[in-house]
Amino acid sequence: MRLAARPVGEVRPEDWEHATAPAEEPGEGRFAGRTRFISLDPAMRGWLDDRPSYLPPVGLGEVMRAGSVVEVTTSNHPDYRPGDHVVGTFGVQEHVVSDGKGALKIDVGLAPASTYLGALGMPGMTAYFGLLDVGALKEGETVVVSGAAGAVGSIVGQIAKVKGCRVVGIAGGAEKCALLTDELGFDAAIDYRAGDVKRALREQTPDGIDVYFDNVGGEILDAALTRLAMRARVVICGAISQYNNETPVSGPSNYLSLLVRRARMEGFVVFDYAKRYAEAAQEIAGWIGDGRLKVKEHVVKGTVDDFPETLQMLFRGENVGKLVLELS
Amino acid sequence: MRLAARPVGEVRPEDWEHATAPAEEPGEGRFAGRTRFISLDPAMRGWLDDRPSYLPPVGLGEVMRAGSVVEVTTSNHPDYRPGDHVVGTFGVQEHVVSDGKGALKIDVGLAPASTYLGALGMPGMTAYFGLLDVGALKEGETVVVSGAAGAVGSIVGQIAKVKGCRVVGIAGGAEKCALLTDELGFDAAIDYRAGDVKRALREQTPDGIDVYFDNVGGEILDAALTRLAMRARVVICGAISQYNNETPVSGPSNYLSLLVRRARMEGFVVFDYAKRYAEAAQEIAGWIGDGRLKVKEHVVKGTVDDFPETLQMLFRGENVGKLVLELS
Repeated sequence: MRLAARPVGEVRPEDWEHATAPAEEPGEGRFAGRTRFISLDPAMRGWLDDRPSYLPPVGLGEVMRAGSVVEVTTSNHPDYRPGDHVVGTFGVQEHVVSDGKGALKIDVGLAPASTYLGALGMPGMTAYFGLLDVGALKEGETVVVSGAAGAVGSIVGQIAKVKGCRVVGIAGGAEKCALLTDELGFDAAIDYRAGDVKRALREQTPDGIDVYFDNVGGEILDAALTRLAMRARVVICGAISQYNNETPVSGPSNYLSLLVRRARMEGFVVFDYAKRYAEAAQEIAGWIGDGRLKVKEHVVKGTVDDFPETLQMLFRGENVGKLVLELS
Repeated sequence: MRLAARPVGEVRPEDWEHATAPAEEPGEGRFAGRTRFISLDPAMRGWLDDRPSYLPPVGLGEVMRAGSVVEVTTSNHPDYRPGDHVVGTFGVQEHVVSDGKGALKIDVGLAPASTYLGALGMPGMTAYFGLLDVGALKEGETVVVSGAAGAVGSIVGQIAKVKGCRVVGIAGGAEKCALLTDELGFDAAIDYRAGDVKRALREQTPDGIDVYFDNVGGEILDAALTRLAMRARVVICGAISQYNNETPVSGPSNYLSLLVRRARMEGFVVFDYAKRYAEAAQEIAGWIGDGRLKVKEHVVKGTVDDFPETLQMLFRGENVGKLVLELS
């Protein structure tokens, strides 16, 4: 699936084109494989805009950038054998040829392949380092996370529970909220579609918010800023409410509470922690193993042609947990 | 000078009332004095609003809160003698009676009395701890400060020069900008009234901004956010452009550059550093002594009746350096 046009606002079907090419044979030092799972991430929207960011934009006519799990089918590379599964940024395509750079072999006996795109992949790493490193979480603190039923948010909240914190999740709809409290162990959930988030936060965070982990931006970020405890940390992970804006991003008008509460707001990009991924994955795998962290995945089965429509689900809030496209 | 009404937007003369009371005699353990200098600070605008902040609002009918230098005239307190000068939060009034709590005796032989309201007072402490502690300034970095010709900004820039940094000041008008570069040693000055601040910042900060010290908020904060270097620190000291707003504060719509640049935005309140004031004052006094830090003061001579009009000068950008009212 190639990017055909730069979207303005919401991504439209005509911004994509499906190109077909004969499956390439892998040369010396390369392997070929077929894609099993493709990751869908809010950050993808940003990669489509032609402006400087932490990664260059996807070029017009290029295969869409995406993380995926690939099963090796043919190999002229000493480290890979047919049947091996690898995770990497292989893009939205059915057949992949790679020299193995940036590819990581995974053990699909240890965890389902898709989990390496979720709890054991980028969303898991993002939750782990964002909360513990950038957020500098301490035991007994109050944590609020937005996009709480999403890939990152659902893990943020569960890690905070492991660390002995009070955890409040903000999500859209009663179903997602029930999942947070009934299944994932959150102390409270706030349905931002059902009413006044500011008031609900006042009720649910009597001692204020020590760490606010923001995935959404906009009005919810602004509401959280009114509830900061002294020396609070606001972790800026994303702003999905703003990504399809055709007008300028709405800035947090309550940012002066950073001054009043001696608080900080900090952004991060998970790639900076690459050297510590193994450490985080091991700890997360341990929590999954002993049942303290539940993996939520939303699997759509289809072909690469279903990528555009599946991506839109993220911006409509239709997924629960990590959204992946399983190629059949 | 008492607060008569809560101002909406710009403070009007009718928001104040001048009350006269017979000069009180100091009882046991108290001293009386006459006010010599009254400090005028942007933060005062916030104290007039009836909403939670880092200090309670000034009550209706109460003497306006203000830092001042008082000369002791009569004393029944063992630590104070007639002729002593003290600095403290004595309020906008001609005659003061105090038990000495929160008062600090100053040596007007060492520095002019007014300096204890500026470079050796709250603005100096604010600049010092905001830049060095919150901003975590390192030698050789690029520092940008807004409100650069003001009480805090002028000291921020000069401390950054002492620390071997490239310093760019943003101020309103050619005269202030000339002061920054010609007299205070800034490397460059940007006149925000003269043109495109974003473009000027691009030219003057080729390696990006490592520390942005913000006194003004609004569009200038937003412009600075577009130029952050990796791991930049944005120090939120104030937002004078927003204090008279009748509409909600304008939030920084470019806040997502915190994410892209792995940067942080942090607020502070100088009172938290009270235990280290002496350390900072000593170091600043040293820099004043060896000529590396020049004290800029804007002295208005008058009576307490001139307080309202003098306060407005701050919001019109009419002062250069620390604004004080000298009572005659």
